[in-house]
Amino acid sequence: MTIILQSDDIKKCVQLNKELIPIIEDAFKSLAKGNTIMPPILRLDVHKYNGETDVKAAYIEGLDSYAIKVASGFFDNPKLGIPSSNGMMILLDSQTGVIKSVLLDKGYLTDVRTAIAGSIAAKYLSNLESTKAGIIGAGLQARLQLEALKLVRPIDTAFVWSRNATKVEKFVKEIEYLNLKIEICKSPEELITKSDIVVTTTPSKSPLIKSDWIKKGLHITAMGSDAEEKNELDPNILKKCDYYIPDSQSQTAVLGELHHAIENNILPSKVKFKELGDIILDLSLGRKNNDDITICDLTGTGVQDTAIARYTFDLAMSKNLGTKV
Amino acid sequence: MTIILQSDDIKKCVQLNKELIPIIEDAFKSLAKGNTIMPPILRLDVHKYNGETDVKAAYIEGLDSYAIKVASGFFDNPKLGIPSSNGMMILLDSQTGVIKSVLLDKGYLTDVRTAIAGSIAAKYLSNLESTKAGIIGAGLQARLQLEALKLVRPIDTAFVWSRNATKVEKFVKEIEYLNLKIEICKSPEELITKSDIVVTTTPSKSPLIKSDWIKKGLHITAMGSDAEEKNELDPNILKKCDYYIPDSQSQTAVLGELHHAIENNILPSKVKFKELGDIILDLSLGRKNNDDITICDLTGTGVQDTAIARYTFDLAMSKNLGTKV
Repeated sequence: MTIILQSDDIKKCVQLNKELIPIIEDAFKSLAKGNTIMPPILRLDVHKYNGETDVKAAYIEGLDSYAIKVASGFFDNPKLGIPSSNGMMILLDSQTGVIKSVLLDKGYLTDVRTAIAGSIAAKYLSNLESTKAGIIGAGLQARLQLEALKLVRPIDTAFVWSRNATKVEKFVKEIEYLNLKIEICKSPEELITKSDIVVTTTPSKSPLIKSDWIKKGLHITAMGSDAEEKNELDPNILKKCDYYIPDSQSQTAVLGELHHAIENNILPSKVKFKELGDIILDLSLGRKNNDDITICDLTGTGVQDTAIARYTFDLAMSKNLGTKV
Repeated sequence: MTIILQSDDIKKCVQLNKELIPIIEDAFKSLAKGNTIMPPILRLDVHKYNGETDVKAAYIEGLDSYAIKVASGFFDNPKLGIPSSNGMMILLDSQTGVIKSVLLDKGYLTDVRTAIAGSIAAKYLSNLESTKAGIIGAGLQARLQLEALKLVRPIDTAFVWSRNATKVEKFVKEIEYLNLKIEICKSPEELITKSDIVVTTTPSKSPLIKSDWIKKGLHITAMGSDAEEKNELDPNILKKCDYYIPDSQSQTAVLGELHHAIENNILPSKVKFKELGDIILDLSLGRKNNDDITICDLTGTGVQDTAIARYTFDLAMSKNLGTKV
């Protein structure tokens, strides 16, 4: 028997809130402990339509189910009046491979678990008294990352910047519900200068943030780059900072900001960095004082998908949601 | 809107018959022409339960949809009274990435498209007058491969062999419906000696067929190996034969029989072989006379999955099957 969960069911179970933080933290901890099987991402490009589909998967030892997640981005969709993002998750029984559930979330759970990773990065790496958040980009993740920061830090002001001025105006309206002081910046430099925490959420293919702008105490979460050609930070920042923390180094070395630092011979490929899960397990491996500069490089991991798919399924079962087929 | 197709719906649309041969041939032709995007297979192992899950995907240029296929093998399942194989396919819109259909086939379509690849291998590579088929292994694919051979060659006799004598007895009963003369062989050597076409369908990790046994005119389809550690043929056979034909060399060099020939320095890794799709496009690239020895190495490709998922979906729509969600 397979349970089909549709978007509406899923949204009844999962919202972007603090409850999800320990769920996703546990996923990162498992990854750091090495008791997971997380194969490289399968990526299929449909160049003709400016589209890409990623498949991520991870088995976490001891858990009775694991997820396979399909996520698409078709970037011309907005011209057709439909969202760029799409996707679904499949939950399989760890003992038998039987498909327990198909979660037709259209990418919602990916959006949420990605935002929660941003919460976790800020919770463990940024200064406690951070009140000013800078958000680069004006898409859905820009909004969710800002909302996610509010879960862990006393954010009262948002600085926003995007290449696209029209989008920024729209974005400012969208984030009104967060009750923040909002300021549109004229440049990424201005935004960096004013912020305690910066989150980059763009699909940029060339660095938006220069190394010279980085000031003491800053925390940056770079979550836009999840493909070889994407790059939001000047790679020198990874050398300049006190702590560079990937979600999964095996992924960031290929798809994230680290990839560009290695390719440009700014960092050697052999250095092993502490990952986000290591810091969650042992805070002493991260920021030591208020002046430290910390960078968290998020590419999105299969363990996050497994964690949120399991969480959603359990809640849906307890609420008697879904269709049995 | 997504259409959920369940096993019963799917079996109403697709059976192992000649109609599928041109469908899967077209898939191999596209692969040979290079107008496909077929990323490396994602594989996740759950060692604790002797299980593995593969994800395959392929986009074929010009087609309005593409498939992602999840296939699991959990080899202790029979002890629990459930089949080892499991899986499903997802059909996505090529232009938008929207999920058109979820095909909950439990691995049925994979079984069928794998058997049809066996038909195609025999159709293009074996001698026309082949009447004697040798089947190594006694599982589901052993039966389907034999049935698939009957679609393309005048098979009247089946020679069967498996390590497990009890399984062979059961297998002989299972294939009664094929109306063949059936002979259980005492060894793989006896089977090879008596057969015109041999199909190997086992998960063996060491060669079952020795190079010395290979006689003139023989065609072998090796379809059991789809993972690094699997190996059914003495790698010297690949050097000895007149034509070695992979379904996809990029896969067989990693997962198929070719992998072991390269690893043992029997064949150089740089040689480019003609693939099954090349032979379908130009018969003159394959067998030239009755004495030629031909080997087809099948690892299973994403293009086959895309082809059969599309075919199934179209038929299901024409029959008004499935559930809209």
